[in-house]
Amino acid sequence: MSNIKKALLEVDGNLEAATAKLFELISIPSVSSDPEGKPGIEKAARWLCDKLSSLGFDARVVETAGHPLVLAHSTDHTQADRPKLLFYGHYDVQPVGVVEDWRHPPFEPNVINEDGIRRFYGRGASDSKSQLWTFIEGLRAWKTVYGSFPGKVTILLEGEEESGSHSLPAFLKAHEDELSCDIAFICDGDMWSPTQPALNLRLKGLLHEKVTIFAPNRDLHSGYFGAVAVNPIRILSSILASIHDEAGRVTIEGFYDGLKEISQALRRQWSALSEETDLFGKVDLTGGMVEQGYSPLEAIWSRPTVDFNGITSGNQGPGERSVIPGSATVRLSFRLVEGQDPENIRQLFQRHVRSRLPEGCTVEFEGFPGSSAVTLPEDNPFVKATARGLEKEWGKPTVLKGSGGSIPVAQQFKDMLGIDCIVIGFILPDDAIHAPDERYDIKRLHKGVRSWIRILDEFQQA
Amino acid sequence: MSNIKKALLEVDGNLEAATAKLFELISIPSVSSDPEGKPGIEKAARWLCDKLSSLGFDARVVETAGHPLVLAHSTDHTQADRPKLLFYGHYDVQPVGVVEDWRHPPFEPNVINEDGIRRFYGRGASDSKSQLWTFIEGLRAWKTVYGSFPGKVTILLEGEEESGSHSLPAFLKAHEDELSCDIAFICDGDMWSPTQPALNLRLKGLLHEKVTIFAPNRDLHSGYFGAVAVNPIRILSSILASIHDEAGRVTIEGFYDGLKEISQALRRQWSALSEETDLFGKVDLTGGMVEQGYSPLEAIWSRPTVDFNGITSGNQGPGERSVIPGSATVRLSFRLVEGQDPENIRQLFQRHVRSRLPEGCTVEFEGFPGSSAVTLPEDNPFVKATARGLEKEWGKPTVLKGSGGSIPVAQQFKDMLGIDCIVIGFILPDDAIHAPDERYDIKRLHKGVRSWIRILDEFQQA
Repeated sequence: MSNIKKALLEVDGNLEAATAKLFELISIPSVSSDPEGKPGIEKAARWLCDKLSSLGFDARVVETAGHPLVLAHSTDHTQADRPKLLFYGHYDVQPVGVVEDWRHPPFEPNVINEDGIRRFYGRGASDSKSQLWTFIEGLRAWKTVYGSFPGKVTILLEGEEESGSHSLPAFLKAHEDELSCDIAFICDGDMWSPTQPALNLRLKGLLHEKVTIFAPNRDLHSGYFGAVAVNPIRILSSILASIHDEAGRVTIEGFYDGLKEISQALRRQWSALSEETDLFGKVDLTGGMVEQGYSPLEAIWSRPTVDFNGITSGNQGPGERSVIPGSATVRLSFRLVEGQDPENIRQLFQRHVRSRLPEGCTVEFEGFPGSSAVTLPEDNPFVKATARGLEKEWGKPTVLKGSGGSIPVAQQFKDMLGIDCIVIGFILPDDAIHAPDERYDIKRLHKGVRSWIRILDEFQQA
Repeated sequence: MSNIKKALLEVDGNLEAATAKLFELISIPSVSSDPEGKPGIEKAARWLCDKLSSLGFDARVVETAGHPLVLAHSTDHTQADRPKLLFYGHYDVQPVGVVEDWRHPPFEPNVINEDGIRRFYGRGASDSKSQLWTFIEGLRAWKTVYGSFPGKVTILLEGEEESGSHSLPAFLKAHEDELSCDIAFICDGDMWSPTQPALNLRLKGLLHEKVTIFAPNRDLHSGYFGAVAVNPIRILSSILASIHDEAGRVTIEGFYDGLKEISQALRRQWSALSEETDLFGKVDLTGGMVEQGYSPLEAIWSRPTVDFNGITSGNQGPGERSVIPGSATVRLSFRLVEGQDPENIRQLFQRHVRSRLPEGCTVEFEGFPGSSAVTLPEDNPFVKATARGLEKEWGKPTVLKGSGGSIPVAQQFKDMLGIDCIVIGFILPDDAIHAPDERYDIKRLHKGVRSWIRILDEFQQA
């Protein structure tokens, strides 16, 4: 039996044990954006470091100004001529949100058979604990069969991906030599369909802003002053309503300056993809929000957006309260494409808001450094090898696609260290990531691990 | 010494003791709109019933489907030819809101000397526990000196004024005979200035609506779907922004139908009042919200409004969350004037919202029965006698004014029982009612009680 066959059998035979270990990890509530998540963050980092050490890596937890990273290196470089590989994942998760909105507990995963699909639910089940688990288990199986890792391997597990990766730039700068590699796999991506793999070559940049508009007064009685005093909900609503026009285009002056339209060739390729079903899972696109002149796929993969993530002001209940609030807050995110500079977009947006503020009102902006969009050429040899490996496991061509999502780490790897990144992974659109009842399934976990065996094998051939 | 002088001296001599008792009442957290306020509501009702019994009233707590009322009658009708008087107050209070926004604890009143003004702070300090206390203490002093109450006196203390007075209509219907009177004093009103008394002859109607817009999907990842799926914050903002035009007029079709403009004579009278300073206390009207063509005073007293009291959707923090929310909620109140029917306005508003809803979205409205505006003629003899009594205490003419506020009980007294109501009281615009650090002061408490002695004396002369 060939080694590759043995390695795949090793994966198959260890599936149940690997799943049980993964559930331990998902059970740790490692929410990075909430100060109360800190103990879970630290526990998850420790847990992963111990795991990697037990697999033969030289692993350590690296503290930062924010949350720690886990950094691990292989030590048995028997094949020094092989490409140097870096595997990136993140072990932090989004906040739970309103826990009553979950039908399944967010930190108690179990295998549940639903119409023949063996799913498990939990915050981080798909984004991104199962994802990083695929390469850790794949590398374990490889080493078990081959006796060593497939060349020099570095693993980097981040704890701040869901809260802006603020500590990552300083970490990358300080550890540039240790992170040196030929290609980095960012394992936080999704499949084209439940049966067809994909690589993501177009990542959007991301910018978060929190905007609070203050009226000239604090809370007032709406009977006494409703007819005369500024209502910040009214001001904020007008400003938010002014950000998009009737065609769905963003009206912020200069927002689209310097953007390249996608090529006609790419449009045709994406148009063919669009005809496939299940592109948006169970998500209902009714309502006409897509920017005029673009297909939904083109809009998601190539058009920048302004999204409202949260709004709050005044009475939150349970009872009625006849009040004019003193302030109103909105949280926005911007998804940026190639050619848009996050800081420039932030300035344009802030100018848009300020210019619509009535006399007497003030505004406060809170934001974090944003990230630019990043792309990878389709003819990159590592892209080609990875695509071949996935195709062998799944039996269908690997889709080379774009994304509406943002992965700042890819931008930072490229900009700061000059490293090319392949974004890969096995998430599906209806995995409810960032939402209640986030989920994944055993089949994807299994074939995800097997995919890594195939990909590593392609790299051996290359 | 005349009895009226003796009665005023009785008030003066008992001020400290009366203040101490009032502070007991303010210390009871009787929040009516919050289910958790129920114990405070029951305690306050019991406390007031006991107090009235001790003054010689036949008092009882009357249970309702909602919160109880306190109903008390005088029993020693030695002057059967005198007018039958009803005194209305409410013992429930608004929710505290964000407790951290208070510099003074909301339920621990103390006398604090601030630049010579002896203030006390607390939820209900001005709205409306001190107010009802003025007539209770006034009636006590009167009886102490005169040996009996000034004719048949009924006291009605409500526990649902701040949450819509839902149980009041059924109560009024069931107790029509007991409530029979010649005039009712609704003691929940304000002064013209710290030194000039006022009666309120124009009350606005009030309507509350809670609107939730549901997108076709529940929470989605804003990276995946921000470019294509309905964002309910965006929809709600557009709808709210559509409710007022650039002139500050409400754009809801039919909103102004059937309204009478105020007379030129009234405009002139109000214009003279407008020239007095301190009309809006420390409230800053910068921002240009007043409907074009009206002075601020005209807008507050005679123009209907739509006010946004609260909004909430999606991420409420503390961290960032890249989400398109599944729904967005706004709470509104409408202040209505003579000629507007609350149910009709509700229908017009709901039609306005529905007609702006994108395909695929749904909307849920939650509201309570509203109240119409109510007015009282300026030449009513009880109005005239009350105005004279106030003028004697304060040394300045009583202003016969309008209001931006709503007192549903006045509308229900008039509509259901045919009783005319005089709205009276000693609140000032900067008492921070419904807001953090609500307050009142000892001078107004003192002169408020004395005002009742003067008014009751005028009624004896009439």
